[in-house]
Amino acid sequence: MLSNHLQNGMETARLVWSRLPNSEDGEFDAVGISKKSDGGSVESLDYEVIENHAYREEQAQRGKVYFVYQVAVKWFFALLIGIGTGLAAVFINISVENFAGWKFHLTFQIIQKSYLAGFVIYVLFNLALVLSSVYIVTHFAPAAAGSGIPEIKGYLNGVDIHGTLFFRTLIGKIFGSIGSVGGGLALGKEGPLVHTGACIASLLGQGGSTKYHVSSRWLQVFKSDRDRRDLVTCGCAAGVAAAFRAPVGGVLFALEEVTSWWRSQLMWRVFFTSAIVAVVVRTAMGWCKSGKCGHFGAGGFIIWDISGGQEDYSFQELLPMAVIGVIGGLLGALFNQLTLYITHWRRNYLHKKGNRVKIIEACLISLLTSVISFGLPLLRKCTPCPETDPASGIECPSSPGMSGNYVKFYCGRDNEYNDLATIFFNTQDDAIRNLFSAKTIHEFSAQSLLTFLVMFYTLAVITFGSAVPAGQFVPGIMIGSTYGRLVGMFVVNFYQKLNIEEGTYALLGAASFLGGSMRMTVSLCVIMVEITNNLKLLPLIMLVLLISKAVGDAFNEGFYEEQARLRGIPLLESRPKYQMRKMTAKEACGTRKVISLPRVVKVSDVASILRSNKHNGFPVIDHTRNGETLVIGLMLRSHLLVLLQSKVDFQHSPLPCEGSGIIRHNFNEFVKPATSRGLSIGDIHLSSDDLEMYIDLAPFLNPSPYVVPEDMSLTKVYNLFRQLGLRHVFVVPRASRVVGLITRKDLLIEEENEDLDTVELQSTSVRGRRRDRRLTGTADMEDPLLNDLLVQNRTSS
Amino acid sequence: MLSNHLQNGMETARLVWSRLPNSEDGEFDAVGISKKSDGGSVESLDYEVIENHAYREEQAQRGKVYFVYQVAVKWFFALLIGIGTGLAAVFINISVENFAGWKFHLTFQIIQKSYLAGFVIYVLFNLALVLSSVYIVTHFAPAAAGSGIPEIKGYLNGVDIHGTLFFRTLIGKIFGSIGSVGGGLALGKEGPLVHTGACIASLLGQGGSTKYHVSSRWLQVFKSDRDRRDLVTCGCAAGVAAAFRAPVGGVLFALEEVTSWWRSQLMWRVFFTSAIVAVVVRTAMGWCKSGKCGHFGAGGFIIWDISGGQEDYSFQELLPMAVIGVIGGLLGALFNQLTLYITHWRRNYLHKKGNRVKIIEACLISLLTSVISFGLPLLRKCTPCPETDPASGIECPSSPGMSGNYVKFYCGRDNEYNDLATIFFNTQDDAIRNLFSAKTIHEFSAQSLLTFLVMFYTLAVITFGSAVPAGQFVPGIMIGSTYGRLVGMFVVNFYQKLNIEEGTYALLGAASFLGGSMRMTVSLCVIMVEITNNLKLLPLIMLVLLISKAVGDAFNEGFYEEQARLRGIPLLESRPKYQMRKMTAKEACGTRKVISLPRVVKVSDVASILRSNKHNGFPVIDHTRNGETLVIGLMLRSHLLVLLQSKVDFQHSPLPCEGSGIIRHNFNEFVKPATSRGLSIGDIHLSSDDLEMYIDLAPFLNPSPYVVPEDMSLTKVYNLFRQLGLRHVFVVPRASRVVGLITRKDLLIEEENEDLDTVELQSTSVRGRRRDRRLTGTADMEDPLLNDLLVQNRTSS
Repeated sequence: MLSNHLQNGMETARLVWSRLPNSEDGEFDAVGISKKSDGGSVESLDYEVIENHAYREEQAQRGKVYFVYQVAVKWFFALLIGIGTGLAAVFINISVENFAGWKFHLTFQIIQKSYLAGFVIYVLFNLALVLSSVYIVTHFAPAAAGSGIPEIKGYLNGVDIHGTLFFRTLIGKIFGSIGSVGGGLALGKEGPLVHTGACIASLLGQGGSTKYHVSSRWLQVFKSDRDRRDLVTCGCAAGVAAAFRAPVGGVLFALEEVTSWWRSQLMWRVFFTSAIVAVVVRTAMGWCKSGKCGHFGAGGFIIWDISGGQEDYSFQELLPMAVIGVIGGLLGALFNQLTLYITHWRRNYLHKKGNRVKIIEACLISLLTSVISFGLPLLRKCTPCPETDPASGIECPSSPGMSGNYVKFYCGRDNEYNDLATIFFNTQDDAIRNLFSAKTIHEFSAQSLLTFLVMFYTLAVITFGSAVPAGQFVPGIMIGSTYGRLVGMFVVNFYQKLNIEEGTYALLGAASFLGGSMRMTVSLCVIMVEITNNLKLLPLIMLVLLISKAVGDAFNEGFYEEQARLRGIPLLESRPKYQMRKMTAKEACGTRKVISLPRVVKVSDVASILRSNKHNGFPVIDHTRNGETLVIGLMLRSHLLVLLQSKVDFQHSPLPCEGSGIIRHNFNEFVKPATSRGLSIGDIHLSSDDLEMYIDLAPFLNPSPYVVPEDMSLTKVYNLFRQLGLRHVFVVPRASRVVGLITRKDLLIEEENEDLDTVELQSTSVRGRRRDRRLTGTADMEDPLLNDLLVQNRTSS
Repeated sequence: MLSNHLQNGMETARLVWSRLPNSEDGEFDAVGISKKSDGGSVESLDYEVIENHAYREEQAQRGKVYFVYQVAVKWFFALLIGIGTGLAAVFINISVENFAGWKFHLTFQIIQKSYLAGFVIYVLFNLALVLSSVYIVTHFAPAAAGSGIPEIKGYLNGVDIHGTLFFRTLIGKIFGSIGSVGGGLALGKEGPLVHTGACIASLLGQGGSTKYHVSSRWLQVFKSDRDRRDLVTCGCAAGVAAAFRAPVGGVLFALEEVTSWWRSQLMWRVFFTSAIVAVVVRTAMGWCKSGKCGHFGAGGFIIWDISGGQEDYSFQELLPMAVIGVIGGLLGALFNQLTLYITHWRRNYLHKKGNRVKIIEACLISLLTSVISFGLPLLRKCTPCPETDPASGIECPSSPGMSGNYVKFYCGRDNEYNDLATIFFNTQDDAIRNLFSAKTIHEFSAQSLLTFLVMFYTLAVITFGSAVPAGQFVPGIMIGSTYGRLVGMFVVNFYQKLNIEEGTYALLGAASFLGGSMRMTVSLCVIMVEITNNLKLLPLIMLVLLISKAVGDAFNEGFYEEQARLRGIPLLESRPKYQMRKMTAKEACGTRKVISLPRVVKVSDVASILRSNKHNGFPVIDHTRNGETLVIGLMLRSHLLVLLQSKVDFQHSPLPCEGSGIIRHNFNEFVKPATSRGLSIGDIHLSSDDLEMYIDLAPFLNPSPYVVPEDMSLTKVYNLFRQLGLRHVFVVPRASRVVGLITRKDLLIEEENEDLDTVELQSTSVRGRRRDRRLTGTADMEDPLLNDLLVQNRTSS
């Protein structure tokens, strides 16, 4: 009786689980296999195989159409994400460039008359922009503060942080970063763009935001967490591609940095998204060339084309380049440590005091930044213009309010320029372009560069962590290119060679600082190459990155990892820790008690279990007739909560429900809405009658979660966990017997519609064996799972 | 008694297994955990923990030094692989270019007097080169025939094909491809270069070839299959990087095409190798620029810089580009199908007749190729030179025997050129450069291109599969760029726009054919971009690839997959087959009987088991006192064979051996030499005395192979298998209880040397719990694995 139910329940479980949002591992579980593999009496075997076959065919037909539809929708969404992120990037860039353009234009006009009035205007302009940004963040979208990349990494690692992918976060991120970047703070828009891309992807995946009624039913095809994660991965890559106009770099960033697991079929889709972004951005920039976008033009996207620069390098130059790598590692590690301390202090003290403190803080930082960037160049003596070749297109001094080298600021004579103002009193994109620029040897003095380095480094450290959207790429490039150019100046003086460009060293410096801080490798290398559009520098960039990453790793972890840890986001690194080699799976579980549920469980028990702990998954255990226990699956907390809330599955009897095929649920209920914290046990009200009822969990559990034996090395478990992107693994005792052994050849199943002459493999394919099996029946060694149950079943019936 | 032994045995197993070449999954298993986790009486727990702790510390100390050493060696090897592959590529290119250069130079000199004599010289030259190639392959290195990429894919998928990575294969590949490419056959040197890189990596990994006494002991650090696979992955990437001078493309090729599993820490090392190759190749080319390398110069590596070409594209052009994609898909799929049939026929009929047939076949193909490439241009009428700008550097006609456009061949007048000879009577690299060239509109007539397309396609189909090293990249690019240029000609005529370049269409055609044949995506895209050094074409290349891959996929599988299947190499695709969703793990095992071994096994039994089947792994099952069975691990066939051969572990008693700590083996014996087929049961001679002895397998087994429950969906098993690169998975019955549940947070272990204030995570880290545990002892729910054994142990002692 019970065993019969158990069997029925297992069948239903498979049927139902396959339609549930499989947040665990996103795999479809076996559907329609039940009858054949779980037994059935030997007499009716042939009949059942045939029936089963027909059933499978039908399933397959229906499934294939759905499958093709799904694939088509996925590609369509990739397209939409690309277009959306591209447009968002264009919008942010146009806005930032226009705000900054107006600001500098106005300031330059006014300082022709009065430097004080210009200063006031400059400060107020910046303050207004920063204020708007911090107001949006604090009052509308708290999750939009900061970079967002640690949170996205967490999400793709399997940890959902509340609010990260909301619609309001998207809005806050876009408008917040316009304010903060336009307001001249020492931060960039690249991290926020990655976050923006991820938000767009996630919102598309859930078919819009229900809260703001921009939702549509037909878009809700992505039920499983895995599909959503795929979309967000696309969004990330799109963000990077948009920020740097680096499609390949975007793909590699998504691959290397953000995802903990990866399937190569996803790669092509991610690449497609990135390419779409590139097309959108390119088209928009072509359209803007004619001057329709105000100040936005060449200076919009950070593409610093230095292909006109240094073409070759000698072996002597490798030493100063290595020095740049070491400096990058040291400064990067220091940066990580300082930001970590400051962010820690902010989180624990300052930001607990409420929004007003956050706003005041941001405004003070804005004031400080404005004063330094305006004031310091005033103290600097101007330099006479060098004699430049008019054919090179470099003006000296450049016309006021325009981007370019040789900015004239507080200079007495006409043909003078202020080298500190050229990098400080400028948008960051223009400053970087100036630092990277070739054919401008001796433009900057060592003193100015050093001043700028110290001040900007300090500002960047202080700014990160305040309540505005903040990326770390551009500040990193600024800092790195400054000391890179410094080293380059010494090299030029020391080696006395003419074909050495300071700009090349600035680029290497930028790479070294990012490598020393973020510890990215391949993706960063490719991004730098794509930014500068010069493949020839690849080996040099790589050398510098190798050194700076190694130096940085000696001190601390990467920037995003440190920040994620601070925020309590459990990221799994790609490499298992060394001491895991000496631990077993069971040791990792520790002393925590495993709380199992019976198959049919009393509602009051469920409620008290859910209240008493915070576990997200519970093993479900059933008893066979002869008292043996059997683990029948994994029940997720979120699904339990849905069951408790909907109450339609409550039953009076403590026995498994009879109609195993009847599914009373709308499966959409199980989809965790991305825009809310999900259900909590506190939200559910159960009457005393309800508490006396029972639920049969069998239809709702994951019938075959991954298991590991208790004395398996933790390294192995780690790899399993990370490579498959799991959330729960059962640790079980060693098995008593081996039912079968799966090898590579067992997994080489021919597609049904293929009739190629693969003579050599035919004999080992499953199809061949399946045929054998129908003839021979079930052999001794392959007793079905519930064999003992079946025997009893037959005797009892 | 027995249980005590079992426990001792398990400890030893872990200690020994950790030092064995873990060909299974390459993971270190837990070492030194045994006492604590497997039990020990409660009274002595504290003492044991301390003792254990000291032991661990010592292990950790020793281990960390070794770990650092290993990492350093790995990077050093990556460097060596890069240098080796780079030099091999340079050598091959210099040789090929010089042979081909002499050939064309000589022929052009002679045809000034007599076309017949020139023809004879041309044919003989080609014949001699091809003969040398086919002789080397047939008599010296049979595994060097063909592309090699399917075999490497197989190796990295976990299937070792005999001979693929031998030293003689390396030599055969290098010299064979010089002959076959220099001899003007319709094949390329790129596939062979990938194979060459892999061979170099593998030979380095095993410390040279023992057979040829180029071995050294201290290099033999890489014992596990996984380390070797990592090296071979580096070698593959290096090969691609060398062949196309595309370091990023090489990394992506290794990532996307050849490996079935991937760890991001490997990526950086692979990238490093690729960059080293780029540096080596670049340095060599710089050195050769001064003319020290004979004919080798600009024409050496296939870099077709078309950055001087089309900069922009209009939306109207997308239609013809899509047409190119469709053509590519169709022709590519046809190519795969034709080569598959011909290779199948060759393998099953022609090549079974011995080496002489292979040699004759190759010579006939060479003759045919020479006749067509010399004869067809003779039939073609010459075209008058267009009026070219002398500043563009394009000569018409080009000087005889030199590379360049507008080849003069069998022309009556001085300022005429033969457009068919320009592509046909030329090295393939030059031909491709001519097809890709910008600013040469109307150079080729549609008739010539069409003739060339048909003839070359046929030649490429016939040539692939003959007994010479043969790559498919360059022929693919040739075919693709021909029809691409054809379409480009129509576009130029139809749209009447001047900024359209036929060369751009040729490039897209090349991408489309490779996409339609090889079905590579991201890596191909990046390779094409790096080859042409033009990032702006990326979206177009991607569009074309998307279409051609989709069209091709509608007909058959990719080129390498088809070839691998034909050769019986079981490759696991990235995506599980659709019908796996409906199957369970147990169904996949089929009716094959699982052959288990007892822990202590009679030698005669082992011998007969090894003779009676071909399984590569056997579960080892032991009995507890109360008659229950317990799966204690996986024994590999190869290890069993080593045990049988060495005989030092034979014992007279059928009881487990006492001195569990004594290891009589030199672990190097277990390393499967890459240059031999390994042991076979036929090689081992056992006396009748030997047959009566016993072996205790416990020290030699893998104590914790991955297991799956019998009714897990095959899709899940597939993912497990592929993502972790496994070879065996045990299918076991469902567990009766859950000992623990591992979640993400359990795997976040702090490094011992870190003292950061990660307040939020501290409470969930394992270190915290471990401390708790020492105080509280073992809780009820976490009974040790062998608890029942221990209880009995205590009562019996």
